[in-house]
Amino acid sequence: MNCMALRYQDDIVVIDCGMMFPDAELMGIDSVIPDFTFLKDRKEMVRGLVLTHGHEDHIGGVPYLLSEFDIPVYGTDLTLGLVERRLEEHHLADSADLNVVKPSDKITLGPFSIEFIQVTHSIVSAVALAITTPLGVVIHTGDFKVDPTPTDEKLFDLHKLAEYGKRGVLLLLSDSTNSDTSGYSASERAVRPGLENVFHRAEHRIVVACFSSSIPRIQQLLDVSREFGRKLCFIGRSMTQVTEIAHNLGLLRIPEGSLLRPQDVQSAPRNKVCVVVSGTQGEPMSAMSRMAVDNHRNLSLESGDTFVLSARMIPGNEKAIYRMLNHVAKRGAILPTPGNPPLHVSGHAYAEELRLVLNLVRPRFFMPVHGEYRQMAAHAKLAQHLKSSGLEQVFVLETGATLELDKRGAQKSEEVSVGRVLIDSGSLDDVVDEIVVRDRRHLATDGFVLPIVAINKRTGKTEATAEIVTRGFISDNGAELLVQAKQVVARTLENSSVEERGDFGVIQEKIRVDLKKFLNKQTQRRPLILPVILEA
Amino acid sequence: MNCMALRYQDDIVVIDCGMMFPDAELMGIDSVIPDFTFLKDRKEMVRGLVLTHGHEDHIGGVPYLLSEFDIPVYGTDLTLGLVERRLEEHHLADSADLNVVKPSDKITLGPFSIEFIQVTHSIVSAVALAITTPLGVVIHTGDFKVDPTPTDEKLFDLHKLAEYGKRGVLLLLSDSTNSDTSGYSASERAVRPGLENVFHRAEHRIVVACFSSSIPRIQQLLDVSREFGRKLCFIGRSMTQVTEIAHNLGLLRIPEGSLLRPQDVQSAPRNKVCVVVSGTQGEPMSAMSRMAVDNHRNLSLESGDTFVLSARMIPGNEKAIYRMLNHVAKRGAILPTPGNPPLHVSGHAYAEELRLVLNLVRPRFFMPVHGEYRQMAAHAKLAQHLKSSGLEQVFVLETGATLELDKRGAQKSEEVSVGRVLIDSGSLDDVVDEIVVRDRRHLATDGFVLPIVAINKRTGKTEATAEIVTRGFISDNGAELLVQAKQVVARTLENSSVEERGDFGVIQEKIRVDLKKFLNKQTQRRPLILPVILEA
Repeated sequence: MNCMALRYQDDIVVIDCGMMFPDAELMGIDSVIPDFTFLKDRKEMVRGLVLTHGHEDHIGGVPYLLSEFDIPVYGTDLTLGLVERRLEEHHLADSADLNVVKPSDKITLGPFSIEFIQVTHSIVSAVALAITTPLGVVIHTGDFKVDPTPTDEKLFDLHKLAEYGKRGVLLLLSDSTNSDTSGYSASERAVRPGLENVFHRAEHRIVVACFSSSIPRIQQLLDVSREFGRKLCFIGRSMTQVTEIAHNLGLLRIPEGSLLRPQDVQSAPRNKVCVVVSGTQGEPMSAMSRMAVDNHRNLSLESGDTFVLSARMIPGNEKAIYRMLNHVAKRGAILPTPGNPPLHVSGHAYAEELRLVLNLVRPRFFMPVHGEYRQMAAHAKLAQHLKSSGLEQVFVLETGATLELDKRGAQKSEEVSVGRVLIDSGSLDDVVDEIVVRDRRHLATDGFVLPIVAINKRTGKTEATAEIVTRGFISDNGAELLVQAKQVVARTLENSSVEERGDFGVIQEKIRVDLKKFLNKQTQRRPLILPVILEA
Repeated sequence: MNCMALRYQDDIVVIDCGMMFPDAELMGIDSVIPDFTFLKDRKEMVRGLVLTHGHEDHIGGVPYLLSEFDIPVYGTDLTLGLVERRLEEHHLADSADLNVVKPSDKITLGPFSIEFIQVTHSIVSAVALAITTPLGVVIHTGDFKVDPTPTDEKLFDLHKLAEYGKRGVLLLLSDSTNSDTSGYSASERAVRPGLENVFHRAEHRIVVACFSSSIPRIQQLLDVSREFGRKLCFIGRSMTQVTEIAHNLGLLRIPEGSLLRPQDVQSAPRNKVCVVVSGTQGEPMSAMSRMAVDNHRNLSLESGDTFVLSARMIPGNEKAIYRMLNHVAKRGAILPTPGNPPLHVSGHAYAEELRLVLNLVRPRFFMPVHGEYRQMAAHAKLAQHLKSSGLEQVFVLETGATLELDKRGAQKSEEVSVGRVLIDSGSLDDVVDEIVVRDRRHLATDGFVLPIVAINKRTGKTEATAEIVTRGFISDNGAELLVQAKQVVARTLENSSVEERGDFGVIQEKIRVDLKKFLNKQTQRRPLILPVILEA
C-alpha cells in the first residue's frame, strides 16, 4: 500500500493512498490501509491528495483518508473514476472534491507546483509527478514501464523527463518492482500474438482471467475476439464495473454488437464466445473461483473449453491460484502453456528501463520506492554509475523513515509514527487491533485451553466443579491430559492462601503459570491459556 | 507425499512412502503422512516397500509405516542411507530390514519381479521400477529428468526402457511435475557456468542455500570452490548430516582439506569462503533463516557478501522465502539476479523428455503420477499421439482412486480409504485430528466467544455472574458489544424453563444459537461460540 507525504514547512501534499490485500498470515483480515496518525497530528497542514494511477495499492485507502480529511483529490480520468466507485461504496462520493487532470497539466498546492507526466503502465491514464518545491524539483515516477508501443498509443513522455533532468532534479523516487530483472520488459503488445495463438487453436469457449484494471489487456481481448468472430462477455462484479467506467471515459473501444450478456453466454455457440472474468488470484468468492468449482450462475466450464490466466501471481497467492487451476483442469478445460509469445507481460520496468529513467533524470538524490527491500536495494545498485553524473547519494528507506532535504543536502531523519490499520469489513467498527490478529495467530497454531473456576470472593472457597474447555489443542483422545490438567488447577488452588484465592488477578495468574508449565512439559505446545475465575 | 500399492490377488507391494510439509492452511501442523488404513486392513498381504529415491516426499513416511508393518525395504545406497537417518530419529533403525539394491538388480516380492533402472534426477541414486506381474509389465519412473550429462556420469538407462518397451509394457506410471513446461529441461551441468559467474564476481563471502539432498549441486559447489581457491563450509543440521551420508557412500567427492568447520567460518578470510547452507524455503528455524536475521552462531552476513538461492520455491513458500531474501538484502549482501546461465535447474522432466519416455515405453495403458491435477491432465495430453502406437487408454486418478487391470484391459475401480494423517511432533501422541485443525482455522479467522454461566442443577438458578471471554474476535474497544452479549445470554436464561436450565445440553445450545444470531447480526462475523455451563 503506497502512501507518502511531501512536506515543506507547514504544507503537506499526500501522494497516493493505497490499500493492501492481506495474506493468510493476517488471519481473517479483509484489507489493510495506512495508519494516518502522522497526517492527523498535522491536519491543518494537509493541502491535498495527488494520485498517480488507479491500482488498488495506490487508491484503495482514499475513502478512509477522505472520511477524516476534507481535502481536494487530483488524478487522471480513470484514476478518479475508480476512486469514485470506491467512494460510492463508502457513501462518500457526494462530498468528495475530485479534480480531473490530464498529462502536462500543472496544479499548485501550497508551495508545491505539480506537473503530471504521461507514463506507460498496465493500467491506462498513469502519470508520474514532477513537483517543483522551493528547494528544487522532486520527481515521483509512480508505477511505470517504458512501453515503446502502448496499446492506447499514448507514449511515455520521455521528453518531459529529459527536460526536467537537464534543468536539474533534486530527488528522484522511482518504481523498484522489477529492478531485480535484467533487460527490458516486453511491450503490452507482445501479448497479442500469444492471445492469437490461443484463439487459433481453441475449438470451444475461451475464458480469460485478468485484472479488471488491465484496460490495455482487455482492449486487446476485444480486438482479438472481433478478429476471430467471437463475442466477448464480461463476468465478475469488478470486471463489469471497471470496464463500464473505462468505456464511459472513452478509454475502452467496444464496437457495437461485440458484447454478450452474462445470462446469454451459456446458451451461445461455444466457438463464438470469449469470456473475460475477474478473480485471477484465486480469491474464494470471485467469479473465476466459483466458475472453477462449477458454482457460477452464468457459466459452466465444459470439456474442451480453453482457460487462460493472463495475470501475474501475486506472491503469497500461488497456492490458491494453483488450486483454482487444478479445478479448471478437472472441468476438462485446456490450459495453454504460458511461454513465448507470452500470455501476460509485467507492467513494471525492468533494470534497463529503470536505468533509462535514471539517466534521463540524473537526480542529485535518489530514493527507490515501490518494492520489497531487496528490490529497492537492487534499484539502488542500478544507480551506482550515476555517481560521476551528479548523483550524490541513494537512500533506501523503510516505511516510517523520513528523508530531510535542505539547502545543504539530504539525510535520513527521525522515524515517524506510521504503520498499517487492519480492516475487517463487516466488523463492528471495521478497524481491528493488531492484538486481535496476534491472538488469532496464536490460536491458529496451538488453540486454547480455558480453565474455569468459580470462587466465593469472601470465603475464598471454590464453589463449582472446575472445568477446562479447549479447542484447536488436542482432540478428545487427549482427555487424560485434561483430567491431569484439572488436578494441576486443583493443586494450585489448594496451595494458595484464602487471600490469594480472593484476589482473582493473583489466582488467575498462578493458575496460568502452573498450567502452562504442565502443558508445555507434556505436549511441547503453547496454547493460549486463559483462566477464568467466576464470582460465585 | 507419494505412496501407492500394487496388488495382485493376495500380494501387495508398496512403492514409496513420503511425507508432505504442510502449508499455512494446516495451522500449526508439522508434517503430513499418508493414511495407511488400506494397508492395515490387508496387513498379511503386504510383502515389502520399494523406494525410488531419497527425497522426503518419497521416504519421509517410512518410519511411520515401519512402526506398524514388519516388512523388508528395498532402495539404493543413498535412499536407504537417508531412510536410516529418519529411522534413527524414531528409534527404529535397529529393527528395520533394509536391503540395498543397485540399478539393474532384480528382486522378487510374491508374484512381482522388480528390476531397478538407473534414472537421472536432482538427487543421485534415483531409480525407476520395472515390475513384471502375472498380467504384464508395469513401469514406474519415479521422479526423473532425462539429463544427458549428469554430474556423476551415471546415465539414464534409456536402453532398458527401450527393451521393455519393445517387449511390451502393460502400464506406465510417469512423473508429471513439469508436464506443463514445454521443451527439454537444462542439464544439472548448466548450473556450473552460473555458479562460476558468481564466484568470478564475488569479492567477499559466498553463501549458497540449496537442498541438502541436492548432491549433484553440492558436488558442483565443491568443484567450483576448489577451482576458485575457496574452502567450503556446510552449515545446517540436514546439510551436515546428508553430505556426511553421501560422502561415506562415496557419492560426494570431498578432496582432502577442502572443508572448513562452521566454527571457523567467521574468522576465515572472507574471499576464501563458500558457505553451503540448508533452509531454502524460509523455514523459520533453519540455518539460513537464522542467518538472514543475523541470529546464527557461526556466521554473520556482512555488507558485500554474496547470497545465492540455488533451489526452486515450493508453491506456498514464496512469501516466507521473499521475506528471508529481504532480510539478506538488509544485511547488505548482494543477491545475483537469476537468469541465463541459471543458478538452479529443475530435477523433473519437461514435456519433450516425457514424450521421449512415453515413446520408448509405448505402454498399453498410461497413468500420469506425481503432480497436481492440472499437470497430470497435461501429461495425459502429451500421450495422445501414442494412440496409433498401441496406447489404449490414459487414466488420471486422484488420491484414493484405484485402477484395476485384468486380461481384458484396465478400468477405474472403487475408491479406497486413504487420506492424510496430520503429525504435530511434540504433541502427546503426534497424530492430530482434522477436527483440531478445522477448529484452529475457525479460530484463526474469527476467534472465539465463550459465555460462561454457573447454574444450580437442582434449582435451575444462575449462581454466579455470567462471564464472556473472547479472543481473536474484537479488541477491548468492542466492550459495549460484550455488555449487550451478556444481556442476550441473560435473556435466554430468563426465557428458559427450570427444566431447560437444569439440562445443561439444552441450555448450552439455546445460548449458542441466540448469541450466534446476535453476533452475526452485529458484526457479520462467525466466531467459535462455546457456552460453558458450570454446575454450582
